[in-house]
Order: sequence, then structure tokens, then C-alpha cells
Amino acid sequence: MSRNLLLTLRFDGTAYHGWQWQSNAISVQQRITEAAQSVFCEPIKIHGCSRTDAGVHARMFCCNFHADKEIPVDKIPAALNAYLPRDISVYQAEERAQDFHARYSCIKKEYVYCICNTKYRDPFLENRAYFYRYPLAVHDLHDAAQAFVGTHDFSSFCSSGSSVEQKIRTISEFSVTRNGELVLFRVSADGFLYNMVRIMVGTLLDVAEKKFFARDIPNIITAKNREAAGITAPPQGLYLNKVFY
Amino acid sequence: MSRNLLLTLRFDGTAYHGWQWQSNAISVQQRITEAAQSVFCEPIKIHGCSRTDAGVHARMFCCNFHADKEIPVDKIPAALNAYLPRDISVYQAEERAQDFHARYSCIKKEYVYCICNTKYRDPFLENRAYFYRYPLAVHDLHDAAQAFVGTHDFSSFCSSGSSVEQKIRTISEFSVTRNGELVLFRVSADGFLYNMVRIMVGTLLDVAEKKFFARDIPNIITAKNREAAGITAPPQGLYLNKVFY
Repeated sequence: MSRNLLLTLRFDGTAYHGWQWQSNAISVQQRITEAAQSVFCEPIKIHGCSRTDAGVHARMFCCNFHADKEIPVDKIPAALNAYLPRDISVYQAEERAQDFHARYSCIKKEYVYCICNTKYRDPFLENRAYFYRYPLAVHDLHDAAQAFVGTHDFSSFCSSGSSVEQKIRTISEFSVTRNGELVLFRVSADGFLYNMVRIMVGTLLDVAEKKFFARDIPNIITAKNREAAGITAPPQGLYLNKVFY
Repeated sequence: MSRNLLLTLRFDGTAYHGWQWQSNAISVQQRITEAAQSVFCEPIKIHGCSRTDAGVHARMFCCNFHADKEIPVDKIPAALNAYLPRDISVYQAEERAQDFHARYSCIKKEYVYCICNTKYRDPFLENRAYFYRYPLAVHDLHDAAQAFVGTHDFSSFCSSGSSVEQKIRTISEFSVTRNGELVLFRVSADGFLYNMVRIMVGTLLDVAEKKFFARDIPNIITAKNREAAGITAPPQGLYLNKVFY
């Protein structure tokens, strides 16, 4: 019987059109699949824990696949990394139960959205953060973000093009903190809709720019209408940070 | 009379053949000179605070030049950045006395050498740190590094090709610390010879690999011979971190 293997990886998403395999562009899923097929010498179907958008990064991303070839799990990361480009790195492989699925078995995910809040661009954060030059009042943003915490229908924070029917999700934590020049939005939930973090962050930036008031956020949620919410913040600031099973 | 302007900048050195203008390769000095000539509409000669090697980075780099055109100093960074690629960012401009020189007026510089000390490569530190997989005993390296502190002839830690005659320098601080997966070598001195930080770090790594003993370092210094010291650590881990006037 084939083993069900869980991989934990990290990737810089700058060069990729997201996680999901595309017919006309390079995806992380394609790179991992090609590496796994080279290592295991058999057709491999990889299941990712989430779809990330083009340019979005992952400090922790999980995926699983079934494979027959018996390679010791502690040898798998280095074997895959030998076939992977340097912007993708596998750092753990584990055997899981047959019914484990990287997406459906996931109980919680944490995303971090990173803003570089300085007057001038930082060359070391190019493609790694959203550059936003106007000073952000972090405490006000943190307070405003608390309206998202809890169980809500997040239809207003889901881009069109999503095929998901059920749009109720539970956000367990949403913090906004400053670390020097960086402003970090940290959101944990049982699941996320298409572009949900980026639209929530964009809406908070619209609050910072006084296009909305913080007290409007509950009404934006109850509107269940994407048009009611703010902009979609750009992808390069977004990191999938933790995945829980 | 022309003003003497001091610029403070930051650059990711990955794409450049160092600071110094080269006839056959792109340098940071060339990019800054071209931007300054575009902004000031006059021939500009830029003096850098140091020569950095190909692939070496700067969190803080200083340079000065004389220019006639009267542009308010607080407008200069944005004006230059409009002409600079995104891996170079000017974040301050100041007027200085006529005899100020970015290199000769400098009293102290701090370099940081950054090692990513993990079993698997971190995609976010590609070209930004030296990847070194064997666990490093940071306290031992710190203790060994103290032999470099003080006033010494550092000829053993100077690559051939240097035209500098006087090789006595004073290191005021040399610390080795761990911050999670990163091991940071922080060195301050009144001046540095060609490749000096990279050879000192390489020698400490040779100590970690037991090719030398820590107690050999004073003898390596007194040998005044490059052959006596260890390897030259690769450029991508090196950052010019602070410049003092």
C-alpha cells in the first residue's frame, strides 16, 4: 500500500502564478510535482493546503501525496530540494494516515500581511512587503480589526471567481502590530475565502485613509457584498505563516 | 559655490559588481552617478565611503558629491530614487562642509556577516545570507573572535590585489550572536582592508570545523601573511551596516 506523505515547505512566491497548477504559467504545485516525480519515479498527484495567489509567499505551506517508492522520510526533503529551484525549500516530510488531506484535514491557518511603512522603499523588502509611505496608526488599526473576529459570513471579503458556496468562517485572532518599519497584520481562521486577507487588509487601509470609519466594518460584513468592502491589498505583502492539523 | 552633499543609501548588492565603477560591469556607483547627473543636470563625481565587493549588501552606505544646482535637501532622496532601480534606495541627503569626504572623514564602520545556520536553505535568504548547514557553537566563535579586537597589523586578513600600504587597523568590537536560524558576526573598526571581514569570518568557520584552534588566531595575525589565515567567506552574507562620521 502506498504511503501518504505530508511535506512542509517554504516558498518565495515572486516568480510563481500562485500554488495552483496553471496551463499557461509556472506554479509552485507544478515545481513540487515535477520534483516528486523525479525523486519517486512514479506519477504523483499533490494536494496543497490552500491556493495562494500569484506573488503571495509561504513561510509554511503543507501538501500531501501518495507514493509507493520506499524512501526514508528523513531523506525526502534533501532529495526533493535537489530538484527544486532555490525559491522553494522543503524542510520536513512525515508519513500520515491514509485519509489525511492537506486541505480538508487542516483545522486552522495563520496568514501575516506585511507592510513596509517608510517614506522610502527598502531594497531588501522589494517583492516581500507592501510599501506604504503614509504613517499608520497601528493601535487604531488593531482596534478596527477586532470587528472581523468571530464567526461571520465573509461574502463581502471574497473576490468574484470563487466557486465556494459556504462563506461562513471563524476568525480566532486578528492583530495589527508594529515592528520597527514593518506593520504586521496577523490573522488566524478555520479557513479563508478567495482574497479574504487581502480585502480585509485593504479595507483597514481604507479606514486609515478615512474612506471608511472603523464603526462601518460590521455593516460591511452584514452587507455580504464585495462592493461594500475596500480595496484588495497587493499580493507581495501576504505570507501563509502557519498551518495547523 | 557648489554644495557638498552627503547621501545615505541602502542597496541589495546581488545584481552589482560592487560599489566601484567598472568598465565592463554594472556598479552601484555608476547607478548613483547616472541618477545624480539626471537630477542635477551637471557632471557629478561621487565619492563612496568604501569599496564593497560584488554581491555584498549595504543597510547603510554613504557617499558625497559636489553640485551647483540648488535643490532642497529634503527633495533630493525622492528625486534620485525616481531614477534608481529598486535595489538601491536613497533615504537621506544632507549638506556638509566643503572638506567633508565620505571615505576620508569616516571614523568608524560596522559590518554584519549573516549566516543562515539551518539544515535546509531558506528561500527568503537566497543571496542575502551564507547558507551553512552544520550547527555552529556561537559562544565558542564569539570567544575566538575576541583575539581580533584591538590594534593589529591585519596583513593576514587582506586579499592580494590591495594597493593599501598601511595595514594596521583597530577593531573596537567583534561579537558573534544567534538570532533563531541566523548567526550574526558584527565587527566595528576604524577601517577595513580588502576582504578583511570575509577572511576573519572564514577563519572563524575554519575554527568551527577544527582546521584551526581558537588559540591559533593571535599567531595568524602576527604571521602577516594571507596564506596563514582561513578561507574568504562568500560575499552574499556581508552587509555594511553603519557608517560613522
